[in-house]
Amino acid sequence: MATRYLEDFEPGGVHPAGSVQLSEDEILEFGRRYDPQPFHVDPEAARASIYGGLIASGWQTVAVTMRLLVDHVFGQAANMGSPGVDEIRWLRPVRPGDTLSVRVTVLETRPSRSKPDRGVLRFRVDVDNQDGEPTMSMVGASFVGRRPHI
Amino acid sequence: MATRYLEDFEPGGVHPAGSVQLSEDEILEFGRRYDPQPFHVDPEAARASIYGGLIASGWQTVAVTMRLLVDHVFGQAANMGSPGVDEIRWLRPVRPGDTLSVRVTVLETRPSRSKPDRGVLRFRVDVDNQDGEPTMSMVGASFVGRRPHI
Repeated sequence: MATRYLEDFEPGGVHPAGSVQLSEDEILEFGRRYDPQPFHVDPEAARASIYGGLIASGWQTVAVTMRLLVDHVFGQAANMGSPGVDEIRWLRPVRPGDTLSVRVTVLETRPSRSKPDRGVLRFRVDVDNQDGEPTMSMVGASFVGRRPHI
Repeated sequence: MATRYLEDFEPGGVHPAGSVQLSEDEILEFGRRYDPQPFHVDPEAARASIYGGLIASGWQTVAVTMRLLVDHVFGQAANMGSPGVDEIRWLRPVRPGDTLSVRVTVLETRPSRSKPDRGVLRFRVDVDNQDGEPTMSMVGASFVGRRPHI
């Protein structure tokens, strides 16, 4: 059951969303399946690349971030999916053993005009590594249910 | 070895990138791992949702699209990673059994000023279902090597 509604997200509010560590095996597995570029799947070729070693697919960073967002923030919300995202920025490579910490900042909540039971939540996601350095940022949107009048 | 360089991508050029079918098992597997919202992981809850049935995580659509982009377009290019993407739009739900077809349209190529061996390729990705309906669009960018002078 939803316990957070559109009204529970305050613009400017910051919601921590936990952290996750990525192993070399996980980076290779994701890369082989979804993004088999040499610097994601071949440690030797990766060493010879401009990255100097294996790095995670940016889409793996997005996927593990999404899992944390669902577990820590949106899983308890009356979430109804998303129309899309803007401005994904991969700011630094993610390497084997890195631990990523995720936080969400609420940008805006806007009740729908046509559908009074829901609205759009716009938010920014920041993903930092274990040294506090930004590795990814993203601006997203979700349809979120409004608190029912009982 | 790279066989396509920045110079080989003509603005306006359209590159087909193949197609992929998504099974219910694959949708459930991805959802459980990365995006465990009810309409991605629980067929019964999905039926009661606004989607009326199970739908794929938008991030799964992105991930299988990326695989096709690497296999059909960027895998042969001197690709050096990506600074990010803009404007991912999930336009229609992707349901079990849907077949997604991907094409890339080149928007712009811009040689780097500071690094003469590479440039930025900006492109649009369109993902249609088996009925020719748009399910996702995305505007992305990649660093691509320039053709060496031999």
